[in-house]
Amino acid sequence: MSDAGGEDVLKALSDYLAGDMQACNQAIIDRMQSSVPLIPQLGAHLVAAGGKRLRPLLTLASARLCGYGHTPEQQRHVGLAACVEFIHTATLLHDDVVDESALRRGAASANALFGNKASVLVGDFLFARSFQLMTADGSLEVMSILSEASATIAEGEVLQMSTQNDLSTPVERYLTVIHGKTAALFAAACRVGAVVAGKEGAEEKALESFGTNLGMAFQLVDDALDYAADQQTLGKTVGDDLREGKITLPVLAAYGAASPQERAFWERVIEKNEQTPDDLPTALSLIEKTGAIEITLARAAAYADRAVAALEIFPESELKTLLIRTVTYAVNRAR
Amino acid sequence: MSDAGGEDVLKALSDYLAGDMQACNQAIIDRMQSSVPLIPQLGAHLVAAGGKRLRPLLTLASARLCGYGHTPEQQRHVGLAACVEFIHTATLLHDDVVDESALRRGAASANALFGNKASVLVGDFLFARSFQLMTADGSLEVMSILSEASATIAEGEVLQMSTQNDLSTPVERYLTVIHGKTAALFAAACRVGAVVAGKEGAEEKALESFGTNLGMAFQLVDDALDYAADQQTLGKTVGDDLREGKITLPVLAAYGAASPQERAFWERVIEKNEQTPDDLPTALSLIEKTGAIEITLARAAAYADRAVAALEIFPESELKTLLIRTVTYAVNRAR
Repeated sequence: MSDAGGEDVLKALSDYLAGDMQACNQAIIDRMQSSVPLIPQLGAHLVAAGGKRLRPLLTLASARLCGYGHTPEQQRHVGLAACVEFIHTATLLHDDVVDESALRRGAASANALFGNKASVLVGDFLFARSFQLMTADGSLEVMSILSEASATIAEGEVLQMSTQNDLSTPVERYLTVIHGKTAALFAAACRVGAVVAGKEGAEEKALESFGTNLGMAFQLVDDALDYAADQQTLGKTVGDDLREGKITLPVLAAYGAASPQERAFWERVIEKNEQTPDDLPTALSLIEKTGAIEITLARAAAYADRAVAALEIFPESELKTLLIRTVTYAVNRAR
Repeated sequence: MSDAGGEDVLKALSDYLAGDMQACNQAIIDRMQSSVPLIPQLGAHLVAAGGKRLRPLLTLASARLCGYGHTPEQQRHVGLAACVEFIHTATLLHDDVVDESALRRGAASANALFGNKASVLVGDFLFARSFQLMTADGSLEVMSILSEASATIAEGEVLQMSTQNDLSTPVERYLTVIHGKTAALFAAACRVGAVVAGKEGAEEKALESFGTNLGMAFQLVDDALDYAADQQTLGKTVGDDLREGKITLPVLAAYGAASPQERAFWERVIEKNEQTPDDLPTALSLIEKTGAIEITLARAAAYADRAVAALEIFPESELKTLLIRTVTYAVNRAR
């Protein structure tokens, strides 16, 4: 089965979970409401911008893979999927402020349209709302998973900031960063699905591993795309990472394999942050020459294999196939 | 009893609750730890900067007023007091980014020292940590109170942003803003003390009213001080609110009583945000002339009276007296 039409896989997963996703989207809109008009206004912008809703899909799929959600009474996964999306959206809003991104998901980012202040404060609101949603759910186990993930995300973002412009960052530290900023919430989103289903043993562990490894693969590919894709494919400004002096594996790999003259280029551009318009093409050609994209994608593929392997304990099913194809999509969208 | 030496009252309350406060400070330091060094570094700056720790004092005092905390097993109020301070500190960090304040509590603000990015992200970390602390406590009632307060704070901050530079803001809306940004957490801090003591009836209601009214009085006085105190007394840059075009009662009152020429001044300075160095002295003299500070402080005094009245259901005690004196301090520090 070809996954060349990558987004089709997520659409197929969304279609399979259509009822749940519709309920989840409704929950997102409902809980975005506030007597303060700017909040639903900015919320509507975020909802309209869409996004893949990958994280709530993971919660919904994990719950159903564990046998939950098949009766009208079993609706906890829906509220928690919304909760996961709120946490994600809050971190996106704050990321855009921190990164000063002008584009997000191909549309003007919220901070460009509404200003940094609104992005910080509405992010805080969504974060608080996510905890209200958890509290309404009432499971201490779920709260523990999601509050820990929230702390890990913030730690990952702070660590990423500390590595910025620092070419001596070890690959291990880069991996810790992407675990925090991306994989931790993927893992938590999956675990929560198992917990609502009452499958807190092997299934929760398997889904945690699935989410973690999928998240790592996903972020590695994202970091590769920043030096490979054109703006339309990716829905973000290409060269963002370079301009910000962000330390990602493509840069670390290219720097590691560089000649003295090339090292000087990276040091000027990334460490001293002295950039000219010609630097992006130069960076792209050095990354091409050193095979840095392939190195990054090979790492992603290794995580992807582990994600697929983690699903082994679950019997074959249409949903399991869709989740495996989601992993394939995550790594293949860069090709 | 004179409360001329205002800070002495808080010191007396701190001394009365010395054991609890010590445990609370230790919990704050412990839970500020992270494998990412920048987090405890910035945390240490915040702890060193001190602050009055008024909100955790309210949680500790409320718990004890309700008869909790007198045995070694009864320690929940300590963790929750730390939790309340984390929420407060997270909002301070984000406020400083939003307001671009250079001073906070008389020391250089965290964002001036560590940058906006660090302030946003460490604020997120502290917010997440606060939810971990609540989860560890395990009471859904407490989580509901504190997550709702967190959402209300964010709403208050967004509403405040929407009123910025808008002299047509009704006083009611200003009161909603200060309820959100300040009184909601004061109220929640107090309620949580009653809940851990198992006093979810009249005592919780009384302490909620106490906290709300104290918070309103406190913020009104803060807003008066921004046009009255010198920098040393207040520990912030005087004229901050004017420079930011923030809509507070002193401005609304002065504008409401202004001559046509004076109205033009306020419209230029606040609405058009066209400011010169001479504007602060002019604003201060207009505020003086119109009695805007007295109007603001009279409102504060009315809330203070309600705060004191709310404590009536509690029998006389040294702690109750200290809480009443705290109210007096909150309103009298401007005189």
